[in-house]
Amino acid sequence: MNWEVPALTPGNEVTICGLSLEDYIRKVEVFHGYAAPGMILGGFMVDMAVGRMPHGQLFDALCETPKCLPDAIQLLTPCTVGNGWLKILNLGRFALTLYDKKGGEGVRVFVDPSKLASWPLARDWFLKVGPKEKRDLRELVELLCQMGCKALGVQRVRIDPGFLKLRRHRQFSVCPRCGESYPCDDGPVCLGCQGQAPYKSVSPLET
Amino acid sequence: MNWEVPALTPGNEVTICGLSLEDYIRKVEVFHGYAAPGMILGGFMVDMAVGRMPHGQLFDALCETPKCLPDAIQLLTPCTVGNGWLKILNLGRFALTLYDKKGGEGVRVFVDPSKLASWPLARDWFLKVGPKEKRDLRELVELLCQMGCKALGVQRVRIDPGFLKLRRHRQFSVCPRCGESYPCDDGPVCLGCQGQAPYKSVSPLET
Repeated sequence: MNWEVPALTPGNEVTICGLSLEDYIRKVEVFHGYAAPGMILGGFMVDMAVGRMPHGQLFDALCETPKCLPDAIQLLTPCTVGNGWLKILNLGRFALTLYDKKGGEGVRVFVDPSKLASWPLARDWFLKVGPKEKRDLRELVELLCQMGCKALGVQRVRIDPGFLKLRRHRQFSVCPRCGESYPCDDGPVCLGCQGQAPYKSVSPLET
Repeated sequence: MNWEVPALTPGNEVTICGLSLEDYIRKVEVFHGYAAPGMILGGFMVDMAVGRMPHGQLFDALCETPKCLPDAIQLLTPCTVGNGWLKILNLGRFALTLYDKKGGEGVRVFVDPSKLASWPLARDWFLKVGPKEKRDLRELVELLCQMGCKALGVQRVRIDPGFLKLRRHRQFSVCPRCGESYPCDDGPVCLGCQGQAPYKSVSPLET
Protein backbone atom coordinates (compact mmCIF):
# COMPACT_ATOMS: atom_id res chain seq x y z
CA MET A 1 0.00 0.00 0.00
CA ASN A 2 1.43 3.42 -0.87
CA TRP A 3 0.70 6.47 1.19
CA GLU A 4 0.79 10.08 0.41
CA VAL A 5 2.11 11.82 3.45
CA PRO A 6 -0.82 13.58 5.09
CA ALA A 7 -1.14 17.26 4.25
CA LEU A 8 -0.13 19.09 7.38
CA THR A 9 -0.84 22.68 8.19
CA PRO A 10 1.91 24.76 6.52
CA GLY A 11 4.63 25.57 9.03
CA ASN A 12 3.68 22.55 11.10
CA GLU A 13 7.00 20.75 11.11
CA VAL A 14 6.24 17.59 12.98
CA THR A 15 9.28 15.41 13.64
CA ILE A 16 9.65 11.98 15.17
CA CYS A 17 13.02 11.38 16.81
CA GLY A 18 14.57 13.92 14.46
CA LEU A 19 12.96 12.47 11.32
CA SER A 20 10.37 14.33 9.30
CA LEU A 21 7.00 12.60 9.39
CA GLU A 22 7.52 11.79 5.71
CA ASP A 23 10.88 10.09 6.36
CA TYR A 24 9.51 8.21 9.35
CA ILE A 25 6.58 6.88 7.32
CA ARG A 26 8.99 5.73 4.59
CA LYS A 27 11.06 3.83 7.13
CA VAL A 28 7.89 2.29 8.55
CA GLU A 29 6.82 1.11 5.10
CA VAL A 30 10.17 -0.57 4.50
CA PHE A 31 10.39 -2.28 7.88
CA HIS A 32 6.81 -2.88 8.99
CA GLY A 33 5.27 -3.33 5.55
CA TYR A 34 2.84 -0.39 5.58
CA ALA A 35 2.03 2.77 7.52
CA ALA A 36 -0.13 1.06 10.14
CA PRO A 37 -2.03 3.39 12.50
CA GLY A 38 -0.26 1.78 15.48
CA MET A 39 3.10 2.68 13.95
CA ILE A 40 2.09 6.34 13.62
CA LEU A 41 0.84 6.56 17.20
CA GLY A 42 3.84 4.48 18.31
CA GLY A 43 6.27 6.87 16.61
CA PHE A 44 4.93 9.80 18.61
CA MET A 45 5.09 7.69 21.79
CA VAL A 46 8.74 6.77 21.27
CA ASP A 47 9.57 10.38 20.42
CA MET A 48 7.91 11.53 23.64
CA ALA A 49 9.78 8.98 25.76
CA VAL A 50 13.19 9.55 24.13
CA GLY A 51 12.80 13.31 24.58
CA ARG A 52 12.35 12.83 28.33
CA MET A 53 15.43 10.66 28.89
CA PRO A 54 18.63 12.38 30.06
CA HIS A 55 20.82 13.26 27.07
CA GLY A 56 23.32 10.51 26.25
CA GLN A 57 21.68 8.03 28.64
CA LEU A 58 22.01 4.38 27.57
CA PHE A 59 18.58 2.87 27.95
CA ASP A 60 16.67 -0.36 27.60
CA ALA A 61 13.03 -0.57 26.51
CA LEU A 62 10.01 -2.43 27.82
CA CYS A 63 6.99 -2.73 25.57
CA GLU A 64 3.63 -3.84 27.01
CA THR A 65 2.15 -5.05 23.73
CA PRO A 66 3.53 -7.14 20.84
CA LYS A 67 1.45 -5.13 18.33
CA CYS A 68 3.11 -2.42 16.22
CA LEU A 69 4.76 -0.56 19.10
CA PRO A 70 7.83 -2.89 19.26
CA ASP A 71 8.57 -1.96 15.64
CA ALA A 72 8.40 1.79 16.38
CA ILE A 73 10.88 1.22 19.20
CA GLN A 74 13.18 -0.88 17.00
CA LEU A 75 13.11 1.71 14.20
CA LEU A 76 13.71 4.76 16.36
CA THR A 77 16.00 3.63 19.17
CA PRO A 78 19.04 1.32 19.44
CA CYS A 79 16.81 -1.22 21.24
CA THR A 80 15.86 -4.36 19.30
CA VAL A 81 14.46 -7.71 20.34
CA GLY A 82 17.56 -9.51 19.07
CA ASN A 83 20.13 -7.35 20.86
CA GLY A 84 18.22 -7.79 24.11
CA TRP A 85 17.67 -4.10 24.80
CA LEU A 86 13.94 -4.37 24.01
CA LYS A 87 11.81 -6.70 26.08
CA ILE A 88 8.17 -7.39 25.27
CA LEU A 89 5.90 -8.27 28.17
CA ASN A 90 2.35 -8.58 26.89
CA LEU A 91 0.30 -6.76 29.51
CA GLY A 92 -2.24 -5.85 26.82
CA ARG A 93 -1.61 -2.12 27.15
CA PHE A 94 -0.33 0.10 24.34
CA ALA A 95 2.54 1.52 26.40
CA LEU A 96 6.30 1.58 26.53
CA THR A 97 8.98 2.41 29.08
CA LEU A 98 12.55 3.51 28.39
CA TYR A 99 14.78 3.04 31.41
CA ASP A 100 18.34 3.30 32.65
CA LYS A 101 19.92 -0.14 32.15
CA LYS A 102 21.46 -0.09 35.62
CA GLY A 103 19.28 1.86 38.02
CA GLY A 104 15.96 1.19 36.30
CA GLU A 105 14.73 4.81 36.44
CA GLY A 106 12.60 5.45 33.41
CA VAL A 107 9.83 7.15 31.53
CA ARG A 108 6.61 5.36 30.67
CA VAL A 109 4.42 6.65 27.83
CA PHE A 110 0.88 5.36 27.40
CA VAL A 111 -2.32 6.19 25.55
CA ASP A 112 -4.87 7.95 27.74
CA PRO A 113 -8.34 6.96 26.47
CA SER A 114 -9.93 9.91 28.32
CA LYS A 115 -8.02 12.26 26.01
CA LEU A 116 -9.31 10.50 22.90
CA ALA A 117 -12.81 12.01 23.23
CA SER A 118 -11.93 14.84 20.81
CA TRP A 119 -10.76 12.31 18.21
CA PRO A 120 -13.70 9.90 17.78
CA LEU A 121 -12.24 8.10 14.76
CA ALA A 122 -8.98 7.48 16.64
CA ARG A 123 -10.89 6.46 19.76
CA ASP A 124 -13.00 3.89 17.89
CA TRP A 125 -9.91 2.42 16.25
CA PHE A 126 -7.95 2.35 19.51
CA LEU A 127 -10.74 0.76 21.56
CA LYS A 128 -11.67 -1.50 18.62
CA VAL A 129 -15.23 -0.18 18.45
CA GLY A 130 -17.12 -0.94 15.23
CA PRO A 131 -16.18 -3.15 12.29
CA LYS A 132 -12.56 -3.02 11.19
CA GLU A 133 -13.50 -3.38 7.53
CA LYS A 134 -15.45 -0.11 7.53
CA ARG A 135 -12.48 1.93 8.74
CA ASP A 136 -10.86 4.33 6.29
CA LEU A 137 -7.20 3.62 6.93
CA ARG A 138 -5.91 6.68 5.12
CA GLU A 139 -8.23 9.01 7.02
CA LEU A 140 -7.22 7.36 10.30
CA VAL A 141 -3.49 7.69 9.60
CA GLU A 142 -3.93 11.36 8.67
CA LEU A 143 -5.89 11.96 11.86
CA LEU A 144 -3.22 10.24 13.98
CA CYS A 145 -0.55 12.41 12.35
CA GLN A 146 -2.52 15.47 13.40
CA MET A 147 -3.27 14.12 16.86
CA GLY A 148 0.44 13.56 17.53
CA CYS A 149 1.12 13.36 21.28
CA LYS A 150 -2.19 14.90 22.35
CA ALA A 151 -3.74 11.69 23.67
CA LEU A 152 -0.62 10.42 25.43
CA GLY A 153 0.25 10.31 29.12
CA VAL A 154 3.68 10.20 30.74
CA GLN A 155 4.75 8.63 34.00
CA ARG A 156 8.10 8.40 35.80
CA VAL A 157 8.68 4.79 36.86
CA ARG A 158 11.37 2.60 38.36
CA ILE A 159 11.84 -0.89 36.90
CA ASP A 160 11.93 -3.64 39.56
CA PRO A 161 15.46 -4.92 40.33
CA GLY A 162 14.37 -8.51 39.59
CA PHE A 163 13.38 -7.54 36.04
CA LEU A 164 16.68 -5.72 35.47
CA LYS A 165 18.63 -8.85 36.35
CA LEU A 166 16.84 -11.11 33.88
CA ARG A 167 19.89 -11.32 31.62
CA ARG A 168 21.17 -14.69 32.81
CA HIS A 169 24.29 -16.41 31.61
CA ARG A 170 23.22 -19.96 31.06
CA GLN A 171 25.24 -23.10 30.50
CA PHE A 172 24.62 -24.89 27.22
CA SER A 173 24.69 -28.55 26.30
CA VAL A 174 23.71 -30.78 23.37
CA CYS A 175 20.22 -32.26 23.64
CA PRO A 176 20.50 -36.07 23.57
CA ARG A 177 17.23 -36.30 21.63
CA CYS A 178 17.43 -33.73 18.80
CA GLY A 179 21.21 -33.18 18.90
CA GLU A 180 20.85 -29.40 19.03
CA SER A 181 22.37 -27.02 21.57
CA TYR A 182 20.12 -25.90 24.46
CA PRO A 183 20.37 -24.36 27.95
CA CYS A 184 21.05 -27.21 30.42
CA ASP A 185 18.74 -25.77 33.07
CA ASP A 186 15.76 -26.44 30.77
CA GLY A 187 16.04 -30.12 31.76
CA PRO A 188 17.54 -33.41 30.54
CA VAL A 189 16.26 -32.72 27.01
CA CYS A 190 15.48 -29.36 25.37
CA LEU A 191 12.08 -27.65 25.61
CA GLY A 192 11.37 -28.56 21.99
CA CYS A 193 11.86 -32.26 22.77
CA GLN A 194 9.77 -31.80 25.92
CA GLY A 195 6.80 -31.19 23.62
CA GLN A 196 6.78 -27.40 23.46
CA ALA A 197 7.64 -27.14 19.74
CA PRO A 198 4.47 -26.18 17.84
CA TYR A 199 5.35 -28.19 14.72
CA LYS A 200 5.94 -31.71 13.43
CA SER A 201 8.69 -32.90 11.14
CA VAL A 202 7.23 -34.03 7.81
CA SER A 203 10.28 -35.43 6.02
CA PRO A 204 13.77 -36.71 6.78
CA LEU A 205 16.50 -34.14 7.36
CA GLU A 206 18.09 -32.64 4.28
CA THR A 207 21.86 -32.86 4.22
CA MET B 1 32.70 -1.00 16.66
CA ASN B 2 33.74 -0.84 13.03
CA TRP B 3 34.42 -3.95 11.03
CA GLU B 4 36.44 -4.55 8.00
CA VAL B 5 34.60 -7.05 5.90
CA PRO B 6 36.51 -10.31 6.14
CA ALA B 7 38.79 -11.03 3.23
CA LEU B 8 37.11 -13.74 1.23
CA THR B 9 38.73 -15.94 -1.35
CA PRO B 10 38.68 -14.00 -4.65
CA GLY B 11 35.68 -15.06 -6.70
CA ASN B 12 33.88 -16.19 -3.57
CA GLU B 13 30.81 -14.02 -3.83
CA VAL B 14 28.87 -14.84 -0.73
CA THR B 15 25.43 -13.28 -0.60
CA ILE B 16 22.76 -13.22 2.08
CA CYS B 17 19.24 -12.84 0.73
CA GLY B 18 20.62 -11.05 -2.31
CA LEU B 19 22.86 -8.70 -0.31
CA SER B 20 26.63 -8.83 -0.44
CA LEU B 21 28.11 -9.86 2.90
CA GLU B 22 29.46 -6.31 3.17
CA ASP B 23 26.01 -4.74 2.69
CA TYR B 24 24.44 -7.20 5.10
CA ILE B 25 27.00 -6.40 7.81
CA ARG B 26 26.36 -2.66 7.32
CA LYS B 27 22.62 -3.20 7.79
CA VAL B 28 23.32 -5.29 10.88
CA GLU B 29 25.48 -2.53 12.37
CA VAL B 30 22.73 0.06 11.85
CA PHE B 31 19.91 -2.07 13.24
CA HIS B 32 21.48 -4.40 15.77
CA GLY B 33 24.30 -2.09 16.91
CA TYR B 34 27.28 -4.21 15.84
CA ALA B 35 28.18 -7.24 13.76
CA ALA B 36 27.43 -9.81 16.45
CA PRO B 37 28.46 -13.41 15.66
CA GLY B 38 24.84 -14.53 16.07
CA MET B 39 23.79 -12.05 13.40
CA ILE B 40 26.32 -13.46 10.93
CA LEU B 41 25.28 -17.06 11.55
CA GLY B 42 21.63 -15.91 11.61
CA GLY B 43 21.98 -14.21 8.23
CA PHE B 44 23.11 -17.46 6.62
CA MET B 45 20.26 -19.30 8.35
CA VAL B 46 17.61 -16.91 7.06
CA ASP B 47 19.13 -17.06 3.57
CA MET B 48 18.99 -20.85 3.65
CA ALA B 49 15.34 -20.90 4.78
CA VAL B 50 14.17 -18.20 2.34
CA GLY B 51 15.88 -20.03 -0.54
CA ARG B 52 13.86 -23.16 0.23
CA MET B 53 10.44 -21.50 0.31
CA PRO B 54 8.34 -21.60 -2.88
CA HIS B 55 8.91 -18.43 -4.92
CA GLY B 56 6.38 -15.73 -4.09
CA GLN B 57 5.06 -17.60 -1.05
CA LEU B 58 3.78 -15.33 1.74
CA PHE B 59 5.27 -16.69 4.95
CA ASP B 60 5.32 -16.19 8.69
CA ALA B 61 8.37 -16.86 10.86
CA LEU B 62 8.88 -18.68 14.13
CA CYS B 63 12.11 -18.09 16.02
CA GLU B 64 13.13 -20.42 18.86
CA THR B 65 15.45 -17.96 20.60
CA PRO B 66 15.18 -14.26 21.46
CA LYS B 67 18.93 -13.79 20.92
CA CYS B 68 20.19 -12.21 17.68
CA LEU B 69 18.27 -14.47 15.29
CA PRO B 70 15.01 -12.44 15.49
CA ASP B 71 16.94 -9.41 14.22
CA ALA B 72 18.34 -11.35 11.24
CA ILE B 73 14.76 -12.38 10.38
CA GLN B 74 13.47 -8.82 10.76
CA LEU B 75 16.27 -7.40 8.59
CA LEU B 76 16.02 -9.95 5.79
CA THR B 77 12.33 -10.85 5.53
CA PRO B 78 9.04 -8.93 5.72
CA CYS B 79 8.41 -10.57 9.13
CA THR B 80 8.75 -8.34 12.20
CA VAL B 81 7.62 -8.71 15.79
CA GLY B 82 5.38 -5.67 15.52
CA ASN B 83 3.56 -6.70 12.33
CA GLY B 84 2.86 -10.11 13.86
CA TRP B 85 4.53 -12.17 11.14
CA LEU B 86 7.42 -13.11 13.42
CA LYS B 87 6.68 -14.99 16.61
CA ILE B 88 9.35 -15.75 19.18
CA LEU B 89 8.90 -18.86 21.27
CA ASN B 90 11.93 -19.31 23.50
CA LEU B 91 12.71 -23.01 23.21
CA GLY B 92 16.39 -22.24 23.82
CA ARG B 93 17.45 -23.47 20.38
CA PHE B 94 19.16 -21.32 17.74
CA ALA B 95 16.65 -22.21 15.03
CA LEU B 96 13.99 -20.64 12.86
CA THR B 97 11.07 -21.81 10.76
CA LEU B 98 9.49 -20.00 7.82
CA TYR B 99 6.02 -21.33 7.03
CA ASP B 100 2.98 -20.84 4.86
CA LYS B 101 0.61 -18.56 6.81
CA LYS B 102 -2.38 -20.74 5.97
CA GLY B 103 -1.33 -24.36 5.67
CA GLY B 104 1.64 -24.22 8.04
CA GLU B 105 4.05 -26.10 5.74
CA GLY B 106 7.50 -24.78 6.31
CA VAL B 107 11.24 -25.03 6.42
CA ARG B 108 13.16 -25.17 9.69
CA VAL B 109 16.85 -24.27 9.76
CA PHE B 110 18.95 -25.06 12.81
CA VAL B 111 22.59 -25.27 13.86
CA ASP B 112 23.94 -28.81 13.92
CA PRO B 113 26.62 -29.01 16.65
CA SER B 114 27.99 -32.24 15.16
CA LYS B 115 29.03 -30.24 12.07
CA LEU B 116 30.89 -27.66 14.18
CA ALA B 117 33.81 -30.02 14.89
CA SER B 118 35.83 -28.58 11.99
CA TRP B 119 35.33 -25.06 13.34
CA PRO B 120 36.54 -25.22 16.98
CA LEU B 121 36.41 -21.45 17.56
CA ALA B 122 32.82 -21.33 16.30
CA ARG B 123 31.91 -24.43 18.31
CA ASP B 124 33.28 -22.98 21.57
CA TRP B 125 31.39 -19.74 21.00
CA PHE B 126 28.17 -21.53 20.05
CA LEU B 127 28.24 -23.94 22.98
CA LYS B 128 29.51 -21.18 25.29
CA VAL B 129 32.67 -23.08 26.19
CA GLY B 130 35.44 -21.03 27.79
CA PRO B 131 35.46 -17.42 29.02
CA LYS B 132 33.60 -14.92 26.83
CA GLU B 133 36.17 -12.18 27.55
CA LYS B 134 38.99 -14.16 25.94
CA ARG B 135 37.20 -14.52 22.63
CA ASP B 136 38.51 -12.56 19.65
CA LEU B 137 35.30 -11.20 18.19
CA ARG B 138 36.81 -10.16 14.88
CA GLU B 139 38.39 -13.56 14.32
CA LEU B 140 35.12 -15.25 15.21
CA VAL B 141 33.08 -13.10 12.83
CA GLU B 142 35.54 -13.76 10.01
CA LEU B 143 35.38 -17.48 10.71
CA LEU B 144 31.57 -17.46 10.70
CA CYS B 145 31.60 -15.63 7.37
CA GLN B 146 33.77 -18.41 5.95
CA MET B 147 31.71 -21.15 7.59
CA GLY B 148 28.52 -19.85 5.99
CA CYS B 149 25.86 -22.59 5.89
CA LYS B 150 28.25 -25.48 6.50
CA ALA B 151 27.12 -26.19 10.07
CA LEU B 152 23.40 -25.82 9.41
CA GLY B 153 20.68 -28.42 9.11
CA VAL B 154 17.32 -28.18 7.33
CA GLN B 155 14.04 -29.87 8.12
CA ARG B 156 10.62 -29.77 6.48
CA VAL B 157 7.98 -29.17 9.15
CA ARG B 158 4.29 -28.46 9.51
CA ILE B 159 3.20 -25.88 12.09
CA ASP B 160 0.40 -27.11 14.37
CA PRO B 161 -3.06 -25.74 13.47
CA GLY B 162 -3.49 -24.42 17.04
CA PHE B 163 -0.38 -22.25 16.69
CA LEU B 164 -1.54 -20.91 13.31
CA LYS B 165 -4.78 -19.70 14.84
CA LEU B 166 -3.17 -17.72 17.65
CA ARG B 167 -4.11 -14.40 16.05
CA ARG B 168 -7.19 -13.67 18.12
CA HIS B 169 -9.45 -10.68 17.76
CA ARG B 170 -10.01 -9.51 21.29
CA GLN B 171 -12.50 -7.08 22.74
CA PHE B 172 -11.03 -4.06 24.49
CA SER B 173 -12.23 -2.05 27.44
CA VAL B 174 -10.93 0.69 29.75
CA CYS B 175 -9.33 -0.62 32.94
CA PRO B 176 -11.21 0.84 35.94
CA ARG B 177 -7.96 1.05 37.90
CA CYS B 178 -5.34 2.63 35.60
CA GLY B 179 -7.75 4.07 33.02
CA GLU B 180 -5.87 2.52 30.08
CA SER B 181 -7.28 0.31 27.34
CA TYR B 182 -6.82 -3.47 27.77
CA PRO B 183 -8.27 -6.78 26.45
CA CYS B 184 -11.43 -7.53 28.48
CA ASP B 185 -10.65 -11.25 28.67
CA ASP B 186 -7.60 -10.48 30.84
CA GLY B 187 -10.01 -9.93 33.76
CA PRO B 188 -11.86 -7.15 35.59
CA VAL B 189 -8.67 -5.04 35.63
CA CYS B 190 -5.70 -5.16 33.25
CA LEU B 191 -2.72 -7.48 33.76
CA GLY B 192 -0.60 -4.48 34.80
CA CYS B 193 -3.04 -3.67 37.62
CA GLN B 194 -3.17 -7.38 38.49
CA GLY B 195 0.47 -7.01 39.59
CA GLN B 196 2.28 -8.15 36.45
CA ALA B 197 3.90 -4.78 35.66
CA PRO B 198 7.59 -4.98 36.59
CA TYR B 199 7.83 -1.33 37.69
CA LYS B 200 6.55 1.19 40.23
CA SER B 201 5.39 4.71 39.59
CA VAL B 202 7.77 7.18 41.25
CA SER B 203 6.02 10.50 40.66
CA PRO B 204 2.58 11.88 39.79
CA LEU B 205 1.53 11.78 36.16
CA GLU B 206 2.82 14.55 33.94
CA THR B 207 0.14 16.38 32.03
